[in-house]
Amino acid sequence: MATAKENTGNPAGARRDNPGADNRAQQRRRPMYTRRPRRPQPAKGGAAVPIHIYPLGGLGEVGKNMTVYECCGDMIIVDCGLVFPDSEMYGIDMVIPDFTFVLQNKDKIKGLLITHGHEDHIGSIPYLLQKLDLPVYGTKLTLGLIRNKLEEFNLAGRTRFVEIVPKQKIRLGCFTVEPIHVNHSIPDAVGFAIDSPAGVIIQTGDFKIDYTPLACGPTDLTTLAEYGRRGVLALLSDSTNAERPGFTATEQKVAAGVHNLFTQARNKRIIIATFASNIYRIQQIIELAVQEGRKVAFSGRSMVNNTAMAQELGYMHIPEGTLISVDELNRYAPEEVVLITTGSQGEPLSALSRMASCSHRQVRVGPGDFIIISANPIPGNEKSVTKIVNGLLLLGAEVIYESMYDVHVSGHACQEEQKLMLTLTRPKYFLPVHGEYKQLKKHALTAASLGIPHSNILIAENGSNVILTQDEIKLGDPVTAGAVMVDGLGVGDVGNVVLRDRKHLSEDGLVIIVATVDSRTGKVLAGPDLVSRGFVYVRENESLMDGAQSTVEMTLNRCVEERVRDWNSVKTRMREALSSYIYRRTKRSPMILPVLMEVNGSGKV
Amino acid sequence: MATAKENTGNPAGARRDNPGADNRAQQRRRPMYTRRPRRPQPAKGGAAVPIHIYPLGGLGEVGKNMTVYECCGDMIIVDCGLVFPDSEMYGIDMVIPDFTFVLQNKDKIKGLLITHGHEDHIGSIPYLLQKLDLPVYGTKLTLGLIRNKLEEFNLAGRTRFVEIVPKQKIRLGCFTVEPIHVNHSIPDAVGFAIDSPAGVIIQTGDFKIDYTPLACGPTDLTTLAEYGRRGVLALLSDSTNAERPGFTATEQKVAAGVHNLFTQARNKRIIIATFASNIYRIQQIIELAVQEGRKVAFSGRSMVNNTAMAQELGYMHIPEGTLISVDELNRYAPEEVVLITTGSQGEPLSALSRMASCSHRQVRVGPGDFIIISANPIPGNEKSVTKIVNGLLLLGAEVIYESMYDVHVSGHACQEEQKLMLTLTRPKYFLPVHGEYKQLKKHALTAASLGIPHSNILIAENGSNVILTQDEIKLGDPVTAGAVMVDGLGVGDVGNVVLRDRKHLSEDGLVIIVATVDSRTGKVLAGPDLVSRGFVYVRENESLMDGAQSTVEMTLNRCVEERVRDWNSVKTRMREALSSYIYRRTKRSPMILPVLMEVNGSGKV
Repeated sequence: MATAKENTGNPAGARRDNPGADNRAQQRRRPMYTRRPRRPQPAKGGAAVPIHIYPLGGLGEVGKNMTVYECCGDMIIVDCGLVFPDSEMYGIDMVIPDFTFVLQNKDKIKGLLITHGHEDHIGSIPYLLQKLDLPVYGTKLTLGLIRNKLEEFNLAGRTRFVEIVPKQKIRLGCFTVEPIHVNHSIPDAVGFAIDSPAGVIIQTGDFKIDYTPLACGPTDLTTLAEYGRRGVLALLSDSTNAERPGFTATEQKVAAGVHNLFTQARNKRIIIATFASNIYRIQQIIELAVQEGRKVAFSGRSMVNNTAMAQELGYMHIPEGTLISVDELNRYAPEEVVLITTGSQGEPLSALSRMASCSHRQVRVGPGDFIIISANPIPGNEKSVTKIVNGLLLLGAEVIYESMYDVHVSGHACQEEQKLMLTLTRPKYFLPVHGEYKQLKKHALTAASLGIPHSNILIAENGSNVILTQDEIKLGDPVTAGAVMVDGLGVGDVGNVVLRDRKHLSEDGLVIIVATVDSRTGKVLAGPDLVSRGFVYVRENESLMDGAQSTVEMTLNRCVEERVRDWNSVKTRMREALSSYIYRRTKRSPMILPVLMEVNGSGKV
Repeated sequence: MATAKENTGNPAGARRDNPGADNRAQQRRRPMYTRRPRRPQPAKGGAAVPIHIYPLGGLGEVGKNMTVYECCGDMIIVDCGLVFPDSEMYGIDMVIPDFTFVLQNKDKIKGLLITHGHEDHIGSIPYLLQKLDLPVYGTKLTLGLIRNKLEEFNLAGRTRFVEIVPKQKIRLGCFTVEPIHVNHSIPDAVGFAIDSPAGVIIQTGDFKIDYTPLACGPTDLTTLAEYGRRGVLALLSDSTNAERPGFTATEQKVAAGVHNLFTQARNKRIIIATFASNIYRIQQIIELAVQEGRKVAFSGRSMVNNTAMAQELGYMHIPEGTLISVDELNRYAPEEVVLITTGSQGEPLSALSRMASCSHRQVRVGPGDFIIISANPIPGNEKSVTKIVNGLLLLGAEVIYESMYDVHVSGHACQEEQKLMLTLTRPKYFLPVHGEYKQLKKHALTAASLGIPHSNILIAENGSNVILTQDEIKLGDPVTAGAVMVDGLGVGDVGNVVLRDRKHLSEDGLVIIVATVDSRTGKVLAGPDLVSRGFVYVRENESLMDGAQSTVEMTLNRCVEERVRDWNSVKTRMREALSSYIYRRTKRSPMILPVLMEVNGSGKV
């Protein structure tokens, strides 16, 4: 088995795809994408070795990224993330991938490789490791974040962590994986070049290309180009910003923007909200604070934890005497401090949200505060962010939140960067990943515009079984994939029936009717009593509730007269009578729950 | 009493505000805003006549606009809109203003004036007219839309409608009101110059300034300037786009953008979604369709109704033979038709949403469709719109939805237009209206940047009692104002308790425990039975539910042993025992409802 670098043991007869005149014509039409010699194939009786790609999450959605690769009976997994629930998923805490396929194949799996430490790439790891022991491969910071998470689940002790370093290859069964340094909004992010007997697959992970990042240098374009030169079978690339033309700006632009705002803040206290995982940005803010002679405090659990870990692992440097605790904040004059906080997405329980609603224990916001929200709202969070901004403004603070100030840049590649990735790696096949369908589609169109034939581009789905050889790309029988909802300790015990009930309850509430009946005669011994919740304010709607009760009484009496003894029929008639009475009076349809208790009327039970 | 135009009966001694050196200094600092002679005051023993402004909706929110003016014992109301519920208002259909203050003063009210026919300005009229007879003043199209709405409530017959025309003044008690033509995203929009013994107030209504609108000419800048020259006591101006710098583009830009897309669509069927009230835009699309030789069909109830009314009233012109019904659509080749539809905001039941989910009765979307969404998502609707776009793309349609195509312009003034309005009307006092607090605040800063002294700018709240004279602006005792929730036929019967229950039910569902007990001994005669909804999938969680039942049984037995006869105590103990059992096992807190039915154990009930 050969790695891309070693390139041994392969027959010399490298094949070109689309040879001849047609291909040349295409080259002329599409100058940005040029053909080149392909990596040689292992000769196995002439048949090309296939590699299977099974995306279990991250396609048609933003989040819960997880991909399984299979070749020659070996499997590896890349990432294991979660997605936050949408507004229809009442009461759900998070959503994780369905692990059925992984568990069915647990003996084949050689390891779990992680690209970086964001929740949409690591958030489901505890749930997987609860069911399956697996070595976890990640860079230093990524492993630190995963270890923290596993400790909450008491899984850290029994898990084998393997630290990886860009350019150092790892052997996992028939796979040889090379981590490739990429820029992202968290340090220590990598993509993977996955070499297999079928060829090399590049999975970018989340990436952007920042020529002047704050640390660690730009995305390793050289290594990507080298793989491209030797031949890449397929590229799986981040589609998050596929709808955005141009380039994502460098993180340094934020430094300049925030610096200007620091000057503008003058003698006010500066409060700045950003993502707790954006160690680069936080480091920058600290440096600006030091420059201005301000102390720095952190607020919010994840901000405190992440920055502590980043310091411990050497990813963050805070000069002696700069850091103060949030409790010490009030000992300093406003112009002497910068408070870095969570809550940039309007999360209801975050530190910034508590400040806006005056319920933060240590921080009272007022006219002496200059507040910077250094993040854009993720789609769906706009209203929560607006609520916080209104709250802070009402308290008299100055609040910088608009996109016109350069206080945030994205962590993902825009169209021009996506083109660069495609051009350097020159994949035969292209699979856009990480995004909603509309983003995958745009990314596919971008690839096609560079000359990749439409037939070589595939928009897969979660559960697809993509089979790749040097000769073709095709879909096999799909595998089990899906969304498993987590609610408290329950994993998967809330399904569509429960969600439908929650939705119904949330819209119109419920009315319970309880009656105790004589088991022989059906005569009502107690009740019917009505209990309602979330329906109407009962005290102000007595006539409605009285009418409801008489309606049910009449129904029960009629059942006695008609000698109906099947309690289910009685309950159905109660429900129907009450439901139609309520709808007529209110045009609402609360959930109606009839409960009948049977008692032997003789007193012998 | 004098109107601004007649200007009679006033003493000549016009006063200047801020006379002297200070004022001149200010003029130098702030060149964009210059002082001028003020309108004379009626001399009433030297005391200035006050006018009261009571905003009952639209401040600190986008929607439910309603303002009451009072002067010399007369009152008028401007607008009476609704606001759609936010995500925390479970099951609520819409929110209307609290009419308490209006009803308390019903004898003073001379009329209801409406600026234009959007829901956030007319939507609550039926609920007001249910409680109070009032003449309604509006332009032709606005009255048409209101009449449609009132017919659904059987109120149209008994309501007096008075059609108003820009530049034609109306007398209402001591008020003389001049409607002023403004541009907006619906035809026939006006602002009002409200002349009173206290001075002139200008309320812009929703407006923008379009120098090349499709019909009716630009906002009547001349009349606004004339009022400004004579002296405006206060301006109440639309703040919706206060955060946006620059100018809102002309609606003609949309024409050009849509025209390009029509060319791009070539032989495909064109489906275009926009707001049903945007008669100008729909007219434009029809003209482009005619140009391209395509027939036009409408889909969606409000689209069909609005366009029918607009044609009837002469606001829309469709050449003979152009309009076809949606049922006839399939008789034509794709390149022969344009379908104009509702659903641009991702509304779940709209026509476009039904197309995306393949549940539209007449329209099947596929690769032969070219779909244009000619609207930006209103904040909060992004996710619903994305869902529809994904659905349509998955069906193979081409979908144009990005802001980079010029297929939508806003209906509201941006900062430069707001500055123009302020500069022309030159108000002494300024009250930003129509917007969330952050927008009102921005608009206030814009006004201050033009030289209006901070002390003359007031960000009021719903329920404020703003008292204005030529000498001062101050706040009197606030009046009753608030949000009344409408759910089905119920107006105001859902309050915070009910909403809190709905929220609780939506997050964790509920568990009901019912037991029939002997009224003398407390012995359990039947039950305890557990019924749950929205909690867990019961069939797969039998051991949890069995454990729950035994927990309650044990509690009840202990109550019998301890001879607890107070049923409320028994229920509390049941609730607490079950609640802690469930939380321990699941980390969830469903609503727990214990119900005890008392039966006389002797059988005599």
